Amino acid sequence: MHRNVILVGCKDDKGLVHRITGVLFEAGLNIVRNGEFVDGESNRFYMRTDVEGAVDSAELCRALAAVLPADAWIEMRSPKPKKIAVLATKEYHCLGDLLLRHANGDLNAQICAVLSNHEVLGDLVRTFDLPFHCISHVDMARDEHERLLIEQLGEYELDYVVLAKYMRILSPDFVRAFAHRIINIHHSFLPAFIGANPYRQAFERGVKIIGATAHFVTDDLDEGPIVAQSVLPVDHRQTARDMARAGREVEKIALSRALDLVFADRVVVVGNRTIIFD
Amino acid sequence: MHRNVILVGCKDDKGLVHRITGVLFEAGLNIVRNGEFVDGESNRFYMRTDVEGAVDSAELCRALAAVLPADAWIEMRSPKPKKIAVLATKEYHCLGDLLLRHANGDLNAQICAVLSNHEVLGDLVRTFDLPFHCISHVDMARDEHERLLIEQLGEYELDYVVLAKYMRILSPDFVRAFAHRIINIHHSFLPAFIGANPYRQAFERGVKIIGATAHFVTDDLDEGPIVAQSVLPVDHRQTARDMARAGREVEKIALSRALDLVFADRVVVVGNRTIIFD
Amino acid sequence: MHRNVILVGCKDDKGLVHRITGVLFEAGLNIVRNGEFVDGESNRFYMRTDVEGAVDSAELCRALAAVLPADAWIEMRSPKPKKIAVLATKEYHCLGDLLLRHANGDLNAQICAVLSNHEVLGDLVRTFDLPFHCISHVDMARDEHERLLIEQLGEYELDYVVLAKYMRILSPDFVRAFAHRIINIHHSFLPAFIGANPYRQAFERGVKIIGATAHFVTDDLDEGPIVAQSVLPVDHRQTARDMARAGREVEKIALSRALDLVFADRVVVVGNRTIIFD
Amino acid sequence: MHRNVILVGCKDDKGLVHRITGVLFEAGLNIVRNGEFVDGESNRFYMRTDVEGAVDSAELCRALAAVLPADAWIEMRSPKPKKIAVLATKEYHCLGDLLLRHANGDLNAQICAVLSNHEVLGDLVRTFDLPFHCISHVDMARDEHERLLIEQLGEYELDYVVLAKYMRILSPDFVRAFAHRIINIHHSFLPAFIGANPYRQAFERGVKIIGATAHFVTDDLDEGPIVAQSVLPVDHRQTARDMARAGREVEKIALSRALDLVFADRVVVVGNRTIIFD
Repeated sequence: MHRNVILVGCKDDKGLVHRITGVLFEAGLNIVRNGEFVDGESNRFYMRTDVEGAVDSAELCRALAAVLPADAWIEMRSPKPKKIAVLATKEYHCLGDLLLRHANGDLNAQICAVLSNHEVLGDLVRTFDLPFHCISHVDMARDEHERLLIEQLGEYELDYVVLAKYMRILSPDFVRAFAHRIINIHHSFLPAFIGANPYRQAFERGVKIIGATAHFVTDDLDEGPIVAQSVLPVDHRQTARDMARAGREVEKIALSRALDLVFADRVVVVGNRTIIFD
Repeated sequence: MHRNVILVGCKDDKGLVHRITGVLFEAGLNIVRNGEFVDGESNRFYMRTDVEGAVDSAELCRALAAVLPADAWIEMRSPKPKKIAVLATKEYHCLGDLLLRHANGDLNAQICAVLSNHEVLGDLVRTFDLPFHCISHVDMARDEHERLLIEQLGEYELDYVVLAKYMRILSPDFVRAFAHRIINIHHSFLPAFIGANPYRQAFERGVKIIGATAHFVTDDLDEGPIVAQSVLPVDHRQTARDMARAGREVEKIALSRALDLVFADRVVVVGNRTIIFD
Repeated sequence: MHRNVILVGCKDDKGLVHRITGVLFEAGLNIVRNGEFVDGESNRFYMRTDVEGAVDSAELCRALAAVLPADAWIEMRSPKPKKIAVLATKEYHCLGDLLLRHANGDLNAQICAVLSNHEVLGDLVRTFDLPFHCISHVDMARDEHERLLIEQLGEYELDYVVLAKYMRILSPDFVRAFAHRIINIHHSFLPAFIGANPYRQAFERGVKIIGATAHFVTDDLDEGPIVAQSVLPVDHRQTARDMARAGREVEKIALSRALDLVFADRVVVVGNRTIIFD
Repeated sequence: MHRNVILVGCKDDKGLVHRITGVLFEAGLNIVRNGEFVDGESNRFYMRTDVEGAVDSAELCRALAAVLPADAWIEMRSPKPKKIAVLATKEYHCLGDLLLRHANGDLNAQICAVLSNHEVLGDLVRTFDLPFHCISHVDMARDEHERLLIEQLGEYELDYVVLAKYMRILSPDFVRAFAHRIINIHHSFLPAFIGANPYRQAFERGVKIIGATAHFVTDDLDEGPIVAQSVLPVDHRQTARDMARAGREVEKIALSRALDLVFADRVVVVGNRTIIFD
């Protein structure tokens, strides 16, 4: 059976659900699941609908546009697995988790390639029979390094770029090249412990809970829209190193939850926040 | 502004959302929030809609019935606080929590009275200027005792009866008198530790997490539809008594979450499960 | 049976546990529970021991000092309920929770009085037959207001001062008057959202989890040693106001956990961190 | 630096900590971390001590025995990684997680081999350059199949056998062969949903939280001492299949936590409960 996801965003108005579902009904589509949300701050309406049935995407979007305000954002997404690349540096835990899920059909995405600025993760990636591109940053300006990354990524038609503990800061140019399509796992419960060595910071602040945050990457480091967060209790017996080890677990969990949501087209970015249609 | 909640349940069909929202649009109502769910097991459609605008309830229900399958369940609920009675025995923690919230306008319900089979909680209830009825069960058959309870409860037009650690088993007759309107807090993570002394059982089983379950009461003891559950880690240093003390915290939390949902008309019972429109 | 808690802190050394337990054995005391911790950062040893048996406190401390390094910190605390005062402003939820526990013997402390800079909580406190002192800050300099608070608090021999949503900043002078004896509940998952309106900040940052932090108060606002933290998931449907309401639940939980630990002499402050002997 | 763990269990008595630490001091050992627990039910004393310093294990155990009651259990364990075998059936998630950790030095154990009654996991295991033994149970009596397993396991000097979703019931004979050395991950929050298809059971009961339990295996299926449990919220939108998918995450987490504890010699089994020296 054909399945598609329709996403709509526009100024709120009376009758929007009725109008949209009217178009879907006319097109012979069955609504399997439907979520709406009106953002009280901006007075905007958002809707995500799972529909069943054969449909011409362009035609349906035109028909929807005809019944919606002029500024409406309308997208139809097919349920085929997203094409992604993974960027990592030296840590294996998030990347390994993705590779395992991928190998077993649990990721809902196709990993086209893994890129790293180090060689160390190459064996793990090749173990799973996937392309690994080591693009070292040594003796290279940031923009030159990123140009090489973008060139390599350009060889695949990617839906998303996943930063699985990629430890280099990306320039605005790189971010622009994949706007709203880069997902990062940050090793802290944002906005706590922005910046370097968050587990050291957490240890020194004496917190009793640590966390991790998966978010879309924007120009502002550690400031992009949050998709998922996960936490874990810690105590005084744990050193900064112990916390980092424990943190790897919540990093995996938060990233994996975020990717599940993003790859299922359940996440809509609104300003610096995300609507999660669960 | 007038606000109402509309609840619908019927056999699934193409175009249901369109038809229902058409009726709402015709009635001049604005949809503030909307949730649908199709139960794949029974192939039934459920919808909960928050609408804004003045409306004649009976007329709207008739208009909805006209566009829905014959077996459709349609309810319109006004957002006025539910009228409730609380039954308790000797423990103060859940009752006290409800009394505090009630006194401060946080409960979204009006406590009409508190009933107990013991005197011990009377002072606490009277402290909050609420009616307290002690109806002792001593030297009395169960049905006679319940007859007295029902008689007393009958003096109020109650929407719900909340069992806040009421430690006597209710007969099917009592349950029938308030079908789907009795909410109980059970001192375990159901279905684990059914029956008496769950914390003793949990201690002896050596579990590492304990919980509490808020559920609608049915004829089958501890088997009614679950509304909310809450858990807490425990360890070997905690005796059964310590676990019971810790358990009181999750009991309060689970009951409070469940009542928030029920009193906001967000819970629909389907067989032995609940749909939570959050 | 006599029960006491012995707390020791000193430079780490071989044989410390043996020496300390030797003194306890000589004194005819039985060790019921014992915790040690060596802080790797400072190379200091900490120990907390529950002992059973009659004992002369001063004599035992002298005997312990004789076998420990010169800089050793030694305290013996009797298990009698701590004497506390509670400061609040207008919100009832944390105060009410403490009053309920207190009334039912669950707090492990004696509430000597409640102080507020507003009248609004007076009825609730008097309901529980406890002294309520309203000391308004209106038309008064901060130091003058605090002088009145300290004067009133001075009428009780207090072990701890609990800030149960007391919304005024305390001056270093006030903090000094109760050094390491003031416990505050902060309405955020510190160090995230320091400062005013944390729930508004959390909403705008679009976090998916909110929290609360119970900590000892020091001169640096929101920077004191953390005793307990608690978290709760939130989502895009919750406004800043909804988050504040949800936050009240975790505030109660975090404060209650922290007080349980502090009142049981399970918390030792080391620099800006706490050792929790659980 | 030499590091060892000393575990002691015996009837409770005054002066035990002093006597034990006296022996350690005499042997020139430094106590790095120490935990004691007196089980009130059985009046037995348990202690776990991390010591630093060179030591003759047999001699130290003799010296300890000399100061302890005759029935005392005394063990000294070196911190070298445990030797383990993993048994699995067809599911990759727990096994894969262990293989990843193992490959990256995060498991604190040496995986000597993976055994399965199916071929399907062979590629994954060989990917990580580890021995994989497929021992099919087809057309074979249970005791014959287990004899082959035991024979294969016997080729390695194993400390522990880990059942990472091994879906066959083990006979008492097998369990006896590795008494207290088999750790299983059970796909439910025990004691809820004992037996087959726990996620189907959880779905039908309409629970709002699911869990997983890592436990030592005993003769009584699903009844062995619990080491770690982990939970996850679910809702009405999740089918039994969705719950099983979500459950795989908590299964990994619970198993991984349990193994961390067991491999660090932090777990002592007492009757059907575990003491966790964290």
